[in-house]
Amino acid sequence: MEPSSGSRDARPAAVPAAVPVAAVLPAGGSGERLGGATPKQFCAVQGRPLISYTVQAMERVGWISNIIVVVSPENIEKMKSIIEKYGHKRVTIVKGGITRHRSIFNGLKVFAENQFSNHLLQKPEVVIIHDAVRPFVEEDIISKVVMAAKEHGAAGAIRPLVSTVIASAADGCLDHSLERARYRASEMPQAFLFDIIYKAYQQCTDYDLDYGTECLHLALKYCKTNAKLVEGTADLWKVTYKRDLYAAESIIKDSLSQQVCVITTGKEAVAQVGFLLQESLKSQITIEAISLSLCINDSHVQSSFTGQCYNFICINDNKYDIQETQQLVDMLEKSNIPVLYPVVLVLVHLDISENISFHVGVEELTRIKKFARDVKNKNILVYSLLIQCKDHLLLQETVNSAAVLIMALIKDRNPELTGQLLVA
Amino acid sequence: MEPSSGSRDARPAAVPAAVPVAAVLPAGGSGERLGGATPKQFCAVQGRPLISYTVQAMERVGWISNIIVVVSPENIEKMKSIIEKYGHKRVTIVKGGITRHRSIFNGLKVFAENQFSNHLLQKPEVVIIHDAVRPFVEEDIISKVVMAAKEHGAAGAIRPLVSTVIASAADGCLDHSLERARYRASEMPQAFLFDIIYKAYQQCTDYDLDYGTECLHLALKYCKTNAKLVEGTADLWKVTYKRDLYAAESIIKDSLSQQVCVITTGKEAVAQVGFLLQESLKSQITIEAISLSLCINDSHVQSSFTGQCYNFICINDNKYDIQETQQLVDMLEKSNIPVLYPVVLVLVHLDISENISFHVGVEELTRIKKFARDVKNKNILVYSLLIQCKDHLLLQETVNSAAVLIMALIKDRNPELTGQLLVA
Repeated sequence: MEPSSGSRDARPAAVPAAVPVAAVLPAGGSGERLGGATPKQFCAVQGRPLISYTVQAMERVGWISNIIVVVSPENIEKMKSIIEKYGHKRVTIVKGGITRHRSIFNGLKVFAENQFSNHLLQKPEVVIIHDAVRPFVEEDIISKVVMAAKEHGAAGAIRPLVSTVIASAADGCLDHSLERARYRASEMPQAFLFDIIYKAYQQCTDYDLDYGTECLHLALKYCKTNAKLVEGTADLWKVTYKRDLYAAESIIKDSLSQQVCVITTGKEAVAQVGFLLQESLKSQITIEAISLSLCINDSHVQSSFTGQCYNFICINDNKYDIQETQQLVDMLEKSNIPVLYPVVLVLVHLDISENISFHVGVEELTRIKKFARDVKNKNILVYSLLIQCKDHLLLQETVNSAAVLIMALIKDRNPELTGQLLVA
Repeated sequence: MEPSSGSRDARPAAVPAAVPVAAVLPAGGSGERLGGATPKQFCAVQGRPLISYTVQAMERVGWISNIIVVVSPENIEKMKSIIEKYGHKRVTIVKGGITRHRSIFNGLKVFAENQFSNHLLQKPEVVIIHDAVRPFVEEDIISKVVMAAKEHGAAGAIRPLVSTVIASAADGCLDHSLERARYRASEMPQAFLFDIIYKAYQQCTDYDLDYGTECLHLALKYCKTNAKLVEGTADLWKVTYKRDLYAAESIIKDSLSQQVCVITTGKEAVAQVGFLLQESLKSQITIEAISLSLCINDSHVQSSFTGQCYNFICINDNKYDIQETQQLVDMLEKSNIPVLYPVVLVLVHLDISENISFHVGVEELTRIKKFARDVKNKNILVYSLLIQCKDHLLLQETVNSAAVLIMALIKDRNPELTGQLLVA
């Protein structure tokens, strides 16, 4: 676990450095509503379990010193391996109870009792409670909820109701409907002064622990604390149904398709096509352009590797030079970028020769495919794209269709199509 | 408009043939929550506006005699062209009001007043009200809600609450939270005896019309009718945010990837690969296999064209024979299948020659691409796939990777990759 003092510089102005903050993520749910065997927090989105995204969202916030993930006993080993595989820091895994409230209570106990960990974690002043299945939470709302909790004792994000809420009578008929404008959906994150929420859990009944769902309610009932309600954004939604996993997948793909690094080698024809391609791409994606004389260990490239870029286009002349690509792949691997997200690498080859026929040897094709297959294990998706230009008058048009293909490959990130050679 | 008597045979037992039923789809919303310029009901999903899917869902139910779509004045022409383009039947377009309730009221008026159409439509006994942005509604729930409305005067689908509902006090703090188990989300469809809901709308105040959202509430308030609440399924959800469009897109792609028609020509090598390919595909998708002696006007193929199949694999030997494919495309076009959904057509070529190099002429490649581009305008997505097999010991492995590529093409339905030649 990293010392919390190490990351305090990153703390935004809104949350004073002196406030120790921890987060508890209940992740013990069984995912009944998804209708699948895997609980939704462990379902893969772009190959990575959903819960890893949520942990990452908390981890990004430097001023959260401890992240407590509460999972059911049978998933502890799975959770451990997720933490290890994706290199998450400041995380403590705690064994959950049979209900949500019991799990959260267990999560809080690591700060107050010796029961669940070898050493007692530093008791936070404010504790955030957030669902493992709300991966898109932003620092801004976390910070607002924490500050409100510090002032009011408790706080929670809310959203407008999407549907009218109604009460049914015993006969299954409408009793009354609620005026939609007066009510809100209670979402996550919520935050509490640790002493308040811990006291509330200590006092609450077995009925509360077994059938309750709302922490704000416990703080009100047992500590007379009226939580401050903070308007949240639409991205606080909870992955509940299978369709939500589809949505999460698309949102993540979308966010990975915002930036591309274009690497061209120094030759003149290559540079020209590289320029045209960038012009054609730039209305759709932010471009970082790098021109190299085949010296791939350039500091420019290096800096792209430390940024938020998950797409690389490598333009060279008509050679299927695996060695050069291997260098790039090695650098990507060293950068750790492909650990969290699949990286797209499009190898663009130019064929501006006068040959009338497109000719690739079987062995070359097989070699590219094998290479792509090996590299896929490192979470790097390699595709080849041939820009064929016999007629210079058509160069612009050909480059435009190359740009369309590249954007399709980047947006789709289809692992099954790696190693294929597309032709623009 | 089709006479309603023509489709009465399709009426399920649950809804007696003697009950005239109509549906009103309010579609006047401005789509603020999507944050985009296009209201969500007109956003394209697989190239087709969302509202067309909802109209289709109602149209499929033979015993609904009229479908009233209420749109804002500026979208009437757009709606007309949607009805025409996708060949929807039994639809009447009505000009909406400035709020949801005013729009629904306008929709109901076509059955009672001459104000909105040239001729008064036959007044239904039961009227269904359904959102234009809930495209996945099934006949079963429509039927249940209609029958309950006939018995109780009003009925509506409900779902469990996903989030706890809370009331806030004037100071922006929690006042109280509702016990989640006692409340339900009111969803659509709802249904009413026409006379009840029409009377309710006639009596309701301007305040109701301007600020209300719930038809069940109006029936209760003005006609003392306690609606029967019917438990709905998860697919009643409402497309509200951008992420919901992503989800809708994935759900539709998923449903289009359930069945494939494999057409093989009679030659022995082709038939063998066709058999292996089917074996490899059948764990992932339902297969209808057809073996032809190049006579594509086979009645088997014809019957596939009238079913629910949106994927076709055509296996022949190593010729890029556009003519034969053209025949298939013509039949698809005549079948009207591609009108509603994009159809995937994978042309599988076998290369079992001993040539060491993969060799396709530029002209051939250009011709395939041009063909695919033309056919894409007809909503048919053509991809080529070469199965290369020099070594018969590797045939099974090669066919397996062909199956993986085919499934990826079918599931993705990527219009940008049409005309490409993939190699297994």
